Amino acid sequence: MIQSCQHPSLICSCKLTQPLKSLLLFKCGSRYVSKTATKTVSEFEYDAPSMKTAVPGPKSQELLRQLGEIQNVGAIHFFCNYEESRGNYLVDVDGNRMLDVYTQISSIPIGYNHPALIKVMTNPNNSAFVNRPALGILPPENFPEKLFESLLSIAPSGMNRVQTMACGSCSNENAFKSMFIWYRNKERGYASPSEQEVGTCMINQSPGCPDLSILSFMGAFHGRTMGCLATTHSKAIHKLDIPSFDWPIAPFPKLQYPLEEFVRENAQEEARCLEEVEDLIVKWRQKRKPVAGIVIEPIQAEGGDNHASPDFFIKLRNIARKHGCAFHVDEVQTGGGTTGKFWAHEHWGLDDPADIVSFSKKLLTGGYYHRDELQPDKPYRIFNTWMGDPSKNLFLSEVLNVIRRENLLEEVTRSGKALLQGLYSLQTQYPHILSRARGQGTFCAIDACSDATRDSIMLKARNKGLFMGSCGEKTIRFRPALVFKEYHVHQLLNILNDILAEHK
Amino acid sequence: MIQSCQHPSLICSCKLTQPLKSLLLFKCGSRYVSKTATKTVSEFEYDAPSMKTAVPGPKSQELLRQLGEIQNVGAIHFFCNYEESRGNYLVDVDGNRMLDVYTQISSIPIGYNHPALIKVMTNPNNSAFVNRPALGILPPENFPEKLFESLLSIAPSGMNRVQTMACGSCSNENAFKSMFIWYRNKERGYASPSEQEVGTCMINQSPGCPDLSILSFMGAFHGRTMGCLATTHSKAIHKLDIPSFDWPIAPFPKLQYPLEEFVRENAQEEARCLEEVEDLIVKWRQKRKPVAGIVIEPIQAEGGDNHASPDFFIKLRNIARKHGCAFHVDEVQTGGGTTGKFWAHEHWGLDDPADIVSFSKKLLTGGYYHRDELQPDKPYRIFNTWMGDPSKNLFLSEVLNVIRRENLLEEVTRSGKALLQGLYSLQTQYPHILSRARGQGTFCAIDACSDATRDSIMLKARNKGLFMGSCGEKTIRFRPALVFKEYHVHQLLNILNDILAEHK
Repeated sequence: MIQSCQHPSLICSCKLTQPLKSLLLFKCGSRYVSKTATKTVSEFEYDAPSMKTAVPGPKSQELLRQLGEIQNVGAIHFFCNYEESRGNYLVDVDGNRMLDVYTQISSIPIGYNHPALIKVMTNPNNSAFVNRPALGILPPENFPEKLFESLLSIAPSGMNRVQTMACGSCSNENAFKSMFIWYRNKERGYASPSEQEVGTCMINQSPGCPDLSILSFMGAFHGRTMGCLATTHSKAIHKLDIPSFDWPIAPFPKLQYPLEEFVRENAQEEARCLEEVEDLIVKWRQKRKPVAGIVIEPIQAEGGDNHASPDFFIKLRNIARKHGCAFHVDEVQTGGGTTGKFWAHEHWGLDDPADIVSFSKKLLTGGYYHRDELQPDKPYRIFNTWMGDPSKNLFLSEVLNVIRRENLLEEVTRSGKALLQGLYSLQTQYPHILSRARGQGTFCAIDACSDATRDSIMLKARNKGLFMGSCGEKTIRFRPALVFKEYHVHQLLNILNDILAEHK
Repeated sequence: MIQSCQHPSLICSCKLTQPLKSLLLFKCGSRYVSKTATKTVSEFEYDAPSMKTAVPGPKSQELLRQLGEIQNVGAIHFFCNYEESRGNYLVDVDGNRMLDVYTQISSIPIGYNHPALIKVMTNPNNSAFVNRPALGILPPENFPEKLFESLLSIAPSGMNRVQTMACGSCSNENAFKSMFIWYRNKERGYASPSEQEVGTCMINQSPGCPDLSILSFMGAFHGRTMGCLATTHSKAIHKLDIPSFDWPIAPFPKLQYPLEEFVRENAQEEARCLEEVEDLIVKWRQKRKPVAGIVIEPIQAEGGDNHASPDFFIKLRNIARKHGCAFHVDEVQTGGGTTGKFWAHEHWGLDDPADIVSFSKKLLTGGYYHRDELQPDKPYRIFNTWMGDPSKNLFLSEVLNVIRRENLLEEVTRSGKALLQGLYSLQTQYPHILSRARGQGTFCAIDACSDATRDSIMLKARNKGLFMGSCGEKTIRFRPALVFKEYHVHQLLNILNDILAEHK
């Protein structure tokens, strides 16, 4: 899908104007960038972490106090100096430079301040930045072209259509709506809706607002707006006090790792979950809340990096087909190359493609691909003011160019192997602290023996210049950018090893 | 709130670099911009509409065909050349230049390609564009400062806190969630949630996911994600086939216009609606789906530009207070200065401020203001990956500077008076075609005698260089930018008059 190009690693060969050059060069700590030679990202960014204070430092603490006057700041780690951040290194306001393997909750595709993106931004002909159009009614001239050269050039198999949206939640909400509309159109034999349907929908009543459901999985995360939230089951703090829908929730397989050592046990566990899926579909049909669609992540990310086998997903897709439910793969966190393929579900080898694949984060724009039959029959059914943001499409086009030019999917596969091998070594060395190392590409995770130990390791790592994320109950998740190389892996493993050695 | 400044109309005095100057000057049709003299928006933009083809022209039709291969394009009017659009004039790909009084569904605050915004975009130090942060965990250094100088400088009375979001729907979804969280915290006496609540919320069941409701109004539009959609009741096409919540829906007053001629009748109508609101609150409490919040637009915009009196809103606020419901004013379409005050609800003179005021569109970023007590008690309750987009805050800061510098709220009041007077004249002259002219500031509307007549007038106007929007069943809505001057009003009225004369 992503084609290799004959000119690797040309990212600094773009002709930068003087202010841009100074942006790239003005800080000590970054290597000098020659004006003539061909450079790679490793020559553009910093060499290593560099820490000046404990994190959060005094400047972050003062800003936290200021922001605390107007917002809940309990989730803030520290304040960042994005101007000085480079590649894999995030710089904070106190001058601390950290190797960032969380990348804004997995949403920075090719590192900070990539020169190719700065070039896009400062092109004065890109009026998309200052004139945000209502894409659904008045698209810019280059909108079809940009969709073809960006999103459609990486479309998953079987998907010819794409709808952009502003964020992951809006993408999933509208994907759900598409599945409901498709399902009801089937039910009414593609006839026009009845007067009763048109009348009752205005007051939230059936049959106009039908009692349809979406089947989701325990541990799933699909967003936090109210439709998405009804399919999210990763943490109570997301859901407490918010009204929801009575929709079916199936168990997600709880696999034992490493997967290749527990093939039989894991296959049994997956069979149990699939059986439960079919039972729930039948049960909800009997409850007169039929399942219009099944939504699932290729790897449950917020829920603790839970994997399942390609066989599980292929059988799940067949169940959806058998019962007439749409099959929606949520690639908001897994999409964009981080598993070594552009879409994580490409690892499954589906013969019968998904009906909907949603995305956001590393794709910079939200949205979803879908099969022809999932396109609403009329305009204004899937609609909102902005329908995405074409300035994000401009950046995405350039991100894809960089991925192709620098063979970043190969890079991810290489770095991911080194990372997972390193995590295996660490859990062998520290079996009382770490377990269940797992991953695909650089989309890796490892469990600590408790949430307190996990949190303590993460704080110590941060003070040594390694910024990581957490998920599930006691999991550390690794979500580096696609420009994360093997020598970054070694920096990461060295810092982790130092902390674990002290922890012993 | 918006302070006048001593230096009016200085928008072209900013020091533009050469590429920007050429962007402003390269087209014939725009007047020459002197490098030294102080200029106003009228000297930067075009003089008048200029039409070359019927709309959509051949280029638009070809692009429509291309985009039709990947999306439903039934709502698209034409494709735009945003680079060549200026101020109040939108240029399409066929070279047609139209006076735009719809402004991307009311979301362009100070016209197209405003030089002040182009300056922001091309500042190479604005790394917010290329490094979109996860604002809830890693905000940029200038985030508190930008919030203070932008959103908080225009905060409605009683509001010290603001939460940014990516779009209008996400803003309302999260505002609803804040009201639910606030309501349940009150109900449980601010104690920790029970184990049962924590457990049941994970599977969408009460008491963890309680049966709470939001009261909304017939004709309302609050967005299209599933929580918002349960409070939206403007058009069936928005809601058909999408599951919803059993939440109470009150009648919105159907007033007679002009308001000053029907004071007694309208007061009776408003009293009837308020009585129904109280009945519904009691009824839903008895159904054990208590009303946690009431959401209302100052002017129902999508639903047909329906107005109500300040007295109605003040009494509604008192009802919310009396019954312990939060009071949420949705200013997504009315906010940003278009009614002559920055927030439409400032016209009411509330003694007891609203609990939540949501915004998006002209504010460029979505979000909502709220009272202290509506702030969630814990982090991660209101949260998502991006939590808005700080690059939009940068533009908003500059938009507010322009509004102050050019006294645009006074301009809106002046233009709005001229527009409404003109609409009164037209409906007097063409009483068999037009009626119910109404408005506040430039947020004006007029009804046609039928939807077919309305649509025909709009198409004819478009071909004569006037681009308008519709709402409700047979309403034309006017949503010009804040730089819409009296001479633009006269252009608009002349074109409308020509069409109506032919229609006679």
